Amino acid sequence: MGKRIHNFNAGPAALPLTVLKQIKEELLDFKGSGMSILEISHRSKWFDDVINEAIERTKRLLHLDNDFHVLFIQGGASHQFCMVPMNLALENRPVDYIDTGTWSTKAIKEAKIQGKDVRVIASSEDKNYSYIPKNFKVDGKAAYLHITSNNTIKGTQWDKFPESGDVPIVCDMSSDFMSRPFDARPFGLIYAGAQKNIGPAGTAMVIIRNDMLDRVPDNIPTMLKYSTFSEKNSMFNTPACIVIYTTNLVLKWLEETIGGLEKMEQINKEKAGLLYGFIDGSDFYRGTVRKDSRSMMNVTFRLPSEDLEKEFVAEALKESLGGLKGHRSVGGCRASLYNATGLKSVKALVAFMAEFERKKG
Amino acid sequence: MGKRIHNFNAGPAALPLTVLKQIKEELLDFKGSGMSILEISHRSKWFDDVINEAIERTKRLLHLDNDFHVLFIQGGASHQFCMVPMNLALENRPVDYIDTGTWSTKAIKEAKIQGKDVRVIASSEDKNYSYIPKNFKVDGKAAYLHITSNNTIKGTQWDKFPESGDVPIVCDMSSDFMSRPFDARPFGLIYAGAQKNIGPAGTAMVIIRNDMLDRVPDNIPTMLKYSTFSEKNSMFNTPACIVIYTTNLVLKWLEETIGGLEKMEQINKEKAGLLYGFIDGSDFYRGTVRKDSRSMMNVTFRLPSEDLEKEFVAEALKESLGGLKGHRSVGGCRASLYNATGLKSVKALVAFMAEFERKKG
Repeated sequence: MGKRIHNFNAGPAALPLTVLKQIKEELLDFKGSGMSILEISHRSKWFDDVINEAIERTKRLLHLDNDFHVLFIQGGASHQFCMVPMNLALENRPVDYIDTGTWSTKAIKEAKIQGKDVRVIASSEDKNYSYIPKNFKVDGKAAYLHITSNNTIKGTQWDKFPESGDVPIVCDMSSDFMSRPFDARPFGLIYAGAQKNIGPAGTAMVIIRNDMLDRVPDNIPTMLKYSTFSEKNSMFNTPACIVIYTTNLVLKWLEETIGGLEKMEQINKEKAGLLYGFIDGSDFYRGTVRKDSRSMMNVTFRLPSEDLEKEFVAEALKESLGGLKGHRSVGGCRASLYNATGLKSVKALVAFMAEFERKKG
Repeated sequence: MGKRIHNFNAGPAALPLTVLKQIKEELLDFKGSGMSILEISHRSKWFDDVINEAIERTKRLLHLDNDFHVLFIQGGASHQFCMVPMNLALENRPVDYIDTGTWSTKAIKEAKIQGKDVRVIASSEDKNYSYIPKNFKVDGKAAYLHITSNNTIKGTQWDKFPESGDVPIVCDMSSDFMSRPFDARPFGLIYAGAQKNIGPAGTAMVIIRNDMLDRVPDNIPTMLKYSTFSEKNSMFNTPACIVIYTTNLVLKWLEETIGGLEKMEQINKEKAGLLYGFIDGSDFYRGTVRKDSRSMMNVTFRLPSEDLEKEFVAEALKESLGGLKGHRSVGGCRASLYNATGLKSVKALVAFMAEFERKKG
């Protein structure tokens, strides 16, 4: 089967090995159809079962009632940055955003391009986005409040979601979706690129509350309307079948092997706790984020010098620890601990870090 | 490996068996990376090689010079229906469309939604789109002329592309792309959903000529600009890695196993010739398209009654001949003969059709 590394990439990221093995096993003949899942018609009973199973699993995992629709839309979260204001803004009402860097900043830019009345009601730009803002008030006039639940690049994460009263929260949950349970009711819309916790690159999952669908304007392009996807079960046109199929297998693993989001959160807390604990106990490694805003998904840290960081990443790879380089826009190191990166991998990383410190510290 | 059927689906459709076997072979460890292609970072050298190889193969297969850019954009051809007028329309100039049914009709609808000055300069609606219009004149005022090279549902195909003078042709080539050689120079933009001739569902390939990029307006959403994709080698954000990877393997097969588009066209002509020849020699089966407009890709035909058509499709499936039902919007039967559906499959189909006629005719 070839070698397998400990995968700490920020996305696309690790998938459960059992999922990959099942894909391999049934790649030439999907469920006796005589066709590969890469060939099968999206209008077939076989694929209907796949997409409906993925939707039902999502609803069970997140405890969603029938007020919510689960959609698959191509183009990733970046495409959602444009669809959200186009569909959900309201005449004569502002759209509010909280800027926690990178992805939030891009989402804000796209709303402004469309000429919406954008208000940035809180930002952590003053400290290079190294924390999640706490002091802000949500104004009931806003059509929605947009937040980014986790910043993969800066390594920050919302611990508790903000109180927003009657204002629906719209959340880019790309990089911590399905990593922990949460109450979906305050959310008008949640979107997540699949390639972190729930699948391969090639689709976003969008969860939209019924009342948001009433806002969709008539006069926008068909493929940019959320209602097009909700009315046709995400199959107005051909969806990314292989991506949805893989996502369904990951959701199955989450539900049946892990045992749901409560269990997943416990495991994720243990993984992140182990790594942050080690960093905090070291004078060699240094976390970059305020402690109350640390991400359970993306652990960002620095070493005493950039040369040591380069050496660290290269040496780690020799030990089969991959993807530890920080994002090109910020430098440093980063270990992404998504759902499919197991405790065993984190232990191997910590052992390597201790050894590297012993040699170089 | 399970059974494999003769796959006559209209898309998603058959892929070369050797391609599927290679995907299976390297699914757990892509080129010694220790990761699956489903997990690998799009910012890695491994993936750079994949996407660049796919682009270079496309350029060689189509004899494209450096005036053309090859892009991968998610959302399929339906998403292009909206991107084309948004990017390529010009102030105070009409956009011209030829309506050959279904997909053309949808493309026209999306241009109208955006308030463009749409002129339908020819249409075959008068005869239920059973032919390709020949008598029309292209007006030099048009910003572009949009055509659909092949209609999967009606079973029609442009034999020769229209003379358009200085007006760039924009062509939805989804269902016959890479099935035959053609001169790309008159085309300002070509788009094709991958899931017919070149890969699985989950991306469109877009070929855009340099001068068209100058038309892209500044004030449209980032992810809806062709320039975003051309400037970032289709990786402004995470692309559908597994889909592009599979597409590259299909292009490799086309180039190295088949031997290029001239060879592919010969094979496709032989396949379609065999099936149309059989239909024309029969009083039981009846083609639905004017002979000069017949598609080499999608052969549509009727039997004496709808009951017989149902029986035909069901009996064929028992003989491992799949996907022969006509599109739900038109009924009847349809055999799609894309590149990866071999002559052997067409021979098996014709033998079955002869036997069915003998029993029921």
